[in-house]
Amino acid sequence: MTITLYYLDNSRAMRVLWAAIELGLADQLQVKSYARVEGKKAVPEMQKESGFKLGKSPFLIDDDGQGGRVEVFESVACIEYLHDRYGSQSSLLPASPAWSQKSRVQSWLAFCETPMTHALPIIYLRWHMPESQASLLAEMEDKLSANVCKDLDLYEDAILASEKEHGAENGYLAGGQISLADLANAFTAEYIIVKKVGTANRTWPAVERWLKRLEARPAYRKALEMGGLHDFSLLDLERQSHA
Amino acid sequence: MTITLYYLDNSRAMRVLWAAIELGLADQLQVKSYARVEGKKAVPEMQKESGFKLGKSPFLIDDDGQGGRVEVFESVACIEYLHDRYGSQSSLLPASPAWSQKSRVQSWLAFCETPMTHALPIIYLRWHMPESQASLLAEMEDKLSANVCKDLDLYEDAILASEKEHGAENGYLAGGQISLADLANAFTAEYIIVKKVGTANRTWPAVERWLKRLEARPAYRKALEMGGLHDFSLLDLERQSHA
Repeated sequence: MTITLYYLDNSRAMRVLWAAIELGLADQLQVKSYARVEGKKAVPEMQKESGFKLGKSPFLIDDDGQGGRVEVFESVACIEYLHDRYGSQSSLLPASPAWSQKSRVQSWLAFCETPMTHALPIIYLRWHMPESQASLLAEMEDKLSANVCKDLDLYEDAILASEKEHGAENGYLAGGQISLADLANAFTAEYIIVKKVGTANRTWPAVERWLKRLEARPAYRKALEMGGLHDFSLLDLERQSHA
Repeated sequence: MTITLYYLDNSRAMRVLWAAIELGLADQLQVKSYARVEGKKAVPEMQKESGFKLGKSPFLIDDDGQGGRVEVFESVACIEYLHDRYGSQSSLLPASPAWSQKSRVQSWLAFCETPMTHALPIIYLRWHMPESQASLLAEMEDKLSANVCKDLDLYEDAILASEKEHGAENGYLAGGQISLADLANAFTAEYIIVKKVGTANRTWPAVERWLKRLEARPAYRKALEMGGLHDFSLLDLERQSHA
């Protein structure tokens, strides 16, 4: 049995690949990586070869065990599918009826696109604003940064509270151990911090500690090897700046 | 047993309220509605009374059946929680091992924020761009509309294909019957069409037929009665324009 993952460079596909490896699926995965044109759109081959009309990544293809085909799009749905089908032994999502813990993980899992919703308008502005409007761009970025900073504050508070309750090395988003919530939100936090999108020159030390703990995991490092480009790792950034 | 839903006017809380009613939970729901300040931020009372630090809506509080408290944020997580806990008899999400059908519903469910990610930058521009920059705003809106239109095209194709396969009255996003995917994405499509955000003067007839089918459902109409403001119903818009 092979699960095929269409992986666009520097995309949310990293969330899915990392989750798959954490779930012990590395040997069953076939990863097809694709480049971006000028750092933006996917090369047209991805849409053609995946057959997914929107041409987006991640896109996952699996067989359903009954001769049929499973197609999953959107990174959160891909993660949920992999856990649902192959993760019965995993502790990455608490099982019913631990409703309080389970809904906490699922809330944070769903949250992973919220800071992106606040950060991407800034990216789109940078792409599309005429060069002559540099001061207007700066002014708009400033206004749009407020919500991004609020979201990062929410991460910071959650990690700090968790480090306090569970020990310095066990601060995760939804409690004292890693969950699907961390795998999904790490991409968001890395992206925003490394690209400095809406960060208003602020830093979030607990978020950085949390990211570095996550990035040191063998499954994360293996995902970097197996997948396409992922230019947002804080650990790699540190290495480059010391080189 | 009471489930409390914090409902901000004209927000994604509509998704959750509607889903709760479809799941037969109307009598167990306590809905607390809050206004927006100048059509934007929530009144400060909502954050204070809900105790949810980010002050966002929807926010759901339930008891866990063991003397503990369940707190859920993000509309998709709220919907999943309600279905997971109270929807075992519902057909709104196919059960395992119908992986192909289940992952289709979950992909579309996760997709519900994707068009918002493309539409909200336009809303933020409208809020924050200086009035003197009207022509630049129009130019930027034009550029940002491409992705919104692509997303709406994806809805249109899915509904058309489903109407063709399952009959004119049974065209839903993830197959021939209503699912959680429709409940979540209706808000997105209503919002974009009614506010004309990134629509580039185009129309999507199958999407409009689908929305009107959904809005005619007793549970949707009941949600309009029980919740706060929801100014995006196409049926109500039609009534107003005929009045």
